[in-house]
Amino acid sequence: MSKIRIGIVGYGNLGRGVELAIRSNPDTELAFVATRRDPSAVQIKTENVPVYKTADLAAHQDEADVVVLCGGSATDLPEQTPALAKLFNVIDSFDTHARVPEHFANVDAVAKETGHTAMISVGWDPGMFSLARLYGNCILPDGKDYTFWGKGVSQGHSDAIRRVEGVQDGKQYTVPVEAAMEAVRRGEQPELTTRQKHLRECYVVAKEGADRAKIEHDIKTMPNYFDEYDTVVHFISQEELDRDHAGIPHGGFVMRSGVTGADGEHKHLIEYSLKLDSNPEFTTNVLVAFARAAARFAAEKSYGCKTVFDVPPAYLSPLSGEEIRAHLL
Amino acid sequence: MSKIRIGIVGYGNLGRGVELAIRSNPDTELAFVATRRDPSAVQIKTENVPVYKTADLAAHQDEADVVVLCGGSATDLPEQTPALAKLFNVIDSFDTHARVPEHFANVDAVAKETGHTAMISVGWDPGMFSLARLYGNCILPDGKDYTFWGKGVSQGHSDAIRRVEGVQDGKQYTVPVEAAMEAVRRGEQPELTTRQKHLRECYVVAKEGADRAKIEHDIKTMPNYFDEYDTVVHFISQEELDRDHAGIPHGGFVMRSGVTGADGEHKHLIEYSLKLDSNPEFTTNVLVAFARAAARFAAEKSYGCKTVFDVPPAYLSPLSGEEIRAHLL
Repeated sequence: MSKIRIGIVGYGNLGRGVELAIRSNPDTELAFVATRRDPSAVQIKTENVPVYKTADLAAHQDEADVVVLCGGSATDLPEQTPALAKLFNVIDSFDTHARVPEHFANVDAVAKETGHTAMISVGWDPGMFSLARLYGNCILPDGKDYTFWGKGVSQGHSDAIRRVEGVQDGKQYTVPVEAAMEAVRRGEQPELTTRQKHLRECYVVAKEGADRAKIEHDIKTMPNYFDEYDTVVHFISQEELDRDHAGIPHGGFVMRSGVTGADGEHKHLIEYSLKLDSNPEFTTNVLVAFARAAARFAAEKSYGCKTVFDVPPAYLSPLSGEEIRAHLL
Repeated sequence: MSKIRIGIVGYGNLGRGVELAIRSNPDTELAFVATRRDPSAVQIKTENVPVYKTADLAAHQDEADVVVLCGGSATDLPEQTPALAKLFNVIDSFDTHARVPEHFANVDAVAKETGHTAMISVGWDPGMFSLARLYGNCILPDGKDYTFWGKGVSQGHSDAIRRVEGVQDGKQYTVPVEAAMEAVRRGEQPELTTRQKHLRECYVVAKEGADRAKIEHDIKTMPNYFDEYDTVVHFISQEELDRDHAGIPHGGFVMRSGVTGADGEHKHLIEYSLKLDSNPEFTTNVLVAFARAAARFAAEKSYGCKTVFDVPPAYLSPLSGEEIRAHLL
């Protein structure tokens, strides 16, 4: 069988992660990398694979079975995914939950019109966590959902810290509150406020002579980002930050607490959790597994926009139906 | 929209669980209960629903959209599922892992020939745990699988205890070894023997005058059931057994430990766990969610035998694609 040819658009953390993930999936191969930068300035890790300008991709339509779009959700993907779904089967990790219906509709229209399969919002949240929520809801209809994130680095909150006056550098960890998770695990189905679910822990390098009390106050009272949370601020040196906080770990927990029985007398807990050393590399491993499914849908001429909810799990595996029934069922 | 009419074949723990689960799923309704016993001797909990003899079901082919088969895997289902797939769309919880390929082939042939959808091995293991294993394998191809069961009651092992000479009654709990789970969670990818993964804890009521030392020895050395495990035997009174060990709790953990990165330098852990007060009621909730999917496959004329691996998760939900994308993605 010929390999699934995967193109990468955007060569940042995600693009490099897709390139590595392809090496772990022997039924896939890297077709090309596309970038907005000057291709000659981009050094990729795979030999004998071309680097193109994203704007020139129309000339390379036949070179990839699926293209993984590795841009950001704020401005890149709302444009890129519909644009490239005209040329290729595509998959993205669009993660602005509130704008999913709009993005879905835009991509679906183009993909159906041009005969392509498009998959959006593939990663871990949205993605694997969405699947955990859906399965949990369907199996325990009399129940309640809980999603906790962390412990992990939030890029958005780290950026927000770095914009505070007097801050030289910083990193923010989202930390789930253990007491809240334990209450859910006991089947208490608590109502939890934002503050009761997560802590925000900040590691901050102050500029020389900066007012640390003011920095701490400015962070803790920042609207949307920190004011609704209990926030802890640690001042450390640049050396400590570089040494101890260079990674991009993340993770989290999806719990479904529900009851069954004639009078709801039996409690049940479904818990799905992730503990990830590298948030982008885990995300790209999810993307490559679903790229395999996208290639299968395209081969069946099942076009239009899809999400993780539409994918029969067997489509994610390089193994045959017989093999997965014999070894994994 | 008309409701999904669900028939139940077999009215033991599972059959009664399906009846309760239907109450929690307002888009479903109970069509009939079928039993091998005298129908007039079977008192069901739902009003105005007929009880038939299983042998007479050919006369009631048009009364159910899906029939849930609630027999045992050892002798009932290998006969019942192919036989009833001639008449109905069916779903079972066949759980003899080694015989799945054979059962699948038998059911698939009948279902395709007669134009029915059949779904086998639906529950939590096989079932939800199988899905966790498949997703884990596809996302982290460089990794290792671990399944731990418990703490929970094993019916087979409890039966085995009760057959030991001098034993009046007994119950066996399968207990996962915490130290082994922690080693997996640390990303050590240990090789674990049977003994290192699970303990077997037995609560035994001895007959008056029986030799307790001999009972304990006979249990601990019983081939297949106990000899490969560390087994703890507690002697208690019948009163204590009835009071403290009447439930049928179970649960377990599926873990996928894997690595990513240029040199496998990033560790990742995916963990899926269940903590269930009632093993049969959770199983039947899974069955009813997948019965919804079976009804959808049948409506699409997608016939033949399927497993949980073949079901797009969206098919399990009573909600529309728009709704699940808006609320659960």
